[in-house]
Amino acid sequence: MNSEIQTIDTVRLPARGAQAPPVILNTTAQSSSLTQIPTGVVYCEGNFAKIDGKTANGLVRHSEAYRIVSVIDSTHSGENTGLVLDDVINDIPIVESLKTAIARETSMPDTFIYGMAPSTGRLSTADRGVLLDAIAHGMNIVSGLHEYLSDDVEIARAASDRQVTIRDIRRPKASKDMRLFNGSVANVHALRIAVLGTDCAIGKRTTATVLARALNAKGIKTVLVGTGQTGLMQGAKYGVAMDAVPPQFCCGELEGAIVAASEAEQPDVILIEGQGALSHPAFCTSAFILRGSQPDAVILQHAPKRSHRCDFPNMPMPTPASEIALIEAFADTKVIGVTLNHEGMSEAEITNTIAAQGEKLGLPVTDALSRPAAQLLAMVAAAYPGLQQRNPMAAI
Amino acid sequence: MNSEIQTIDTVRLPARGAQAPPVILNTTAQSSSLTQIPTGVVYCEGNFAKIDGKTANGLVRHSEAYRIVSVIDSTHSGENTGLVLDDVINDIPIVESLKTAIARETSMPDTFIYGMAPSTGRLSTADRGVLLDAIAHGMNIVSGLHEYLSDDVEIARAASDRQVTIRDIRRPKASKDMRLFNGSVANVHALRIAVLGTDCAIGKRTTATVLARALNAKGIKTVLVGTGQTGLMQGAKYGVAMDAVPPQFCCGELEGAIVAASEAEQPDVILIEGQGALSHPAFCTSAFILRGSQPDAVILQHAPKRSHRCDFPNMPMPTPASEIALIEAFADTKVIGVTLNHEGMSEAEITNTIAAQGEKLGLPVTDALSRPAAQLLAMVAAAYPGLQQRNPMAAI
Repeated sequence: MNSEIQTIDTVRLPARGAQAPPVILNTTAQSSSLTQIPTGVVYCEGNFAKIDGKTANGLVRHSEAYRIVSVIDSTHSGENTGLVLDDVINDIPIVESLKTAIARETSMPDTFIYGMAPSTGRLSTADRGVLLDAIAHGMNIVSGLHEYLSDDVEIARAASDRQVTIRDIRRPKASKDMRLFNGSVANVHALRIAVLGTDCAIGKRTTATVLARALNAKGIKTVLVGTGQTGLMQGAKYGVAMDAVPPQFCCGELEGAIVAASEAEQPDVILIEGQGALSHPAFCTSAFILRGSQPDAVILQHAPKRSHRCDFPNMPMPTPASEIALIEAFADTKVIGVTLNHEGMSEAEITNTIAAQGEKLGLPVTDALSRPAAQLLAMVAAAYPGLQQRNPMAAI
Repeated sequence: MNSEIQTIDTVRLPARGAQAPPVILNTTAQSSSLTQIPTGVVYCEGNFAKIDGKTANGLVRHSEAYRIVSVIDSTHSGENTGLVLDDVINDIPIVESLKTAIARETSMPDTFIYGMAPSTGRLSTADRGVLLDAIAHGMNIVSGLHEYLSDDVEIARAASDRQVTIRDIRRPKASKDMRLFNGSVANVHALRIAVLGTDCAIGKRTTATVLARALNAKGIKTVLVGTGQTGLMQGAKYGVAMDAVPPQFCCGELEGAIVAASEAEQPDVILIEGQGALSHPAFCTSAFILRGSQPDAVILQHAPKRSHRCDFPNMPMPTPASEIALIEAFADTKVIGVTLNHEGMSEAEITNTIAAQGEKLGLPVTDALSRPAAQLLAMVAAAYPGLQQRNPMAAI
């Protein structure tokens, strides 16, 4: 296998930024089609289905840029990712180690994806060895860490020696290539809906992905603009990893992604993924998201059973009502509904909370994962009954 | 002169980040004292006293880190910086060119400071030649541009050949050295007042500087925490160039600077410089400033005659009332007064506007530059009548 890989290695590209497309390693039977996407093993040791494993969790649920073949997490070894995550079986197993992940494939997986998003944004020393091992096996590396792996002397040298690529999703463009906000987003015709939340890692991207799929299935052309590393890894065609862009350019770069999506796709709806929470003391990038996208409407994702901000035991969660008031005071927009993250909730609690919160807030409330997508569509249709008229073929 | 400089060159430091202290070039009579600060020539061609010349304007008004010997702007050649800027003569002339700036000194100035802050954050090609000429003369370079001069191959090579330093004020620390917000700012004892504004380049830093000086003169120990490149160039001991820090770390890095100032200086008051405007569609870094500093109070700087946002003719200015409502909705704080930027106003208009706005807003209003500092002090005393009791020796 090594000689075959090394032959292919010689045509590989050097380490690149997030804008570059994924790279296919194998040209064997498995990867012979031009439309084939690269395979990926997701590394999520000790964190799968947990909050800091949100990149792995997201890739298991949805991935257009990589075909995920397995997830590494020895604490769930032998289990099925879909069952562990969402109680629905899928075809992605959880394996003990990188060695097991490689052994079960007929050819070397193309890509090693670092699937954790620790709040520090840094690579642990324990994980470094596994990453270097993947490089030694000739796998390309994808990472959403704030600490750019291509700047790490040891890792960059290993990648160069082995001629594999490092895709640092969060690495922003050079400042000379970034744009300032100029107000052109006001000329975008598509309805713009931002999916914000009351905390980090609470399901904003998941809800936005489910809603985009449901709207498209109804013939209402919808594009999701990603703002975080997971969405970009999943293959979002438009977006920017906002948390790594200098604030000077945050609003402008997001506006640019929305304008580009509008021009290229002429969608009826553009969904914008939120980040953190507008009220969050540490992570309020949603301020830039509201300014840069100037959304017509906002959907708010909330986890009723979460007692404090993720990773911050001393910071209590806001209520949906207070977050809605904050969002509507901060930006000229309106919150059209609330979606739940049902972590820690029984089926009955979900039902009761949907009813109680809907009553209390006077807004549609649903759960994108446990309730039919029709309820999400109804939330949008209630706010925009004329939406289907933008596209005469569509009706929500 | 050249041989003398080259001898000294050999002991200079390599190119460094914003955290490093300024470097003194000369060891001649002019610079013989250990406490002597380096001399600086500020380059502001075509922009002195204008909005994009705000770095030069700020350094002329206040500089602790460099002794400014002249400003280069051929459109004001032969004039006095103080007269042009504030109608008050000072000892810093405006000269035609770098050649003139050098010729009028008895020894080579230590530092060439790029004194403009274009909204693009980039070096114009026209200015590149002057900068390379300064390097050829052995001057160290200071820049607040987003485009780091030490990353520019031509400039970095010239600096290395000539053994001069490049201080890129905006270059953030490596992500591994940055900190996340952790709430420790809540334990800071000093009264925290943020000076925010209704636009960019409107006088927030100037008002904060005047207020800090006035409070210190009254025996109320006050530290100003800078958040922009000009404040750091002026020699702010504590601060961070927020517009260049990844959003992930913005709140945490500012909190860190405030906690450091509190621990080292044990001040009664910490003033925090704002950036842009919370309502600004393009530049809303003040969201991070409010979250990271958790201020007890806010002073709002406003320019009544400014018709649109600086550099954005299609964006109207907000009113002080709307900005105050936004700030108080966004953060658990209160606006205790409004300070004016009197650009385009007659003396009578300033007087009338102070009275009218004070009446309308029900808040103290003053102008830090044209009115006595006692009025600024009274604004703080009205909100915090017990402030002097924190320091029994002081009384506002």
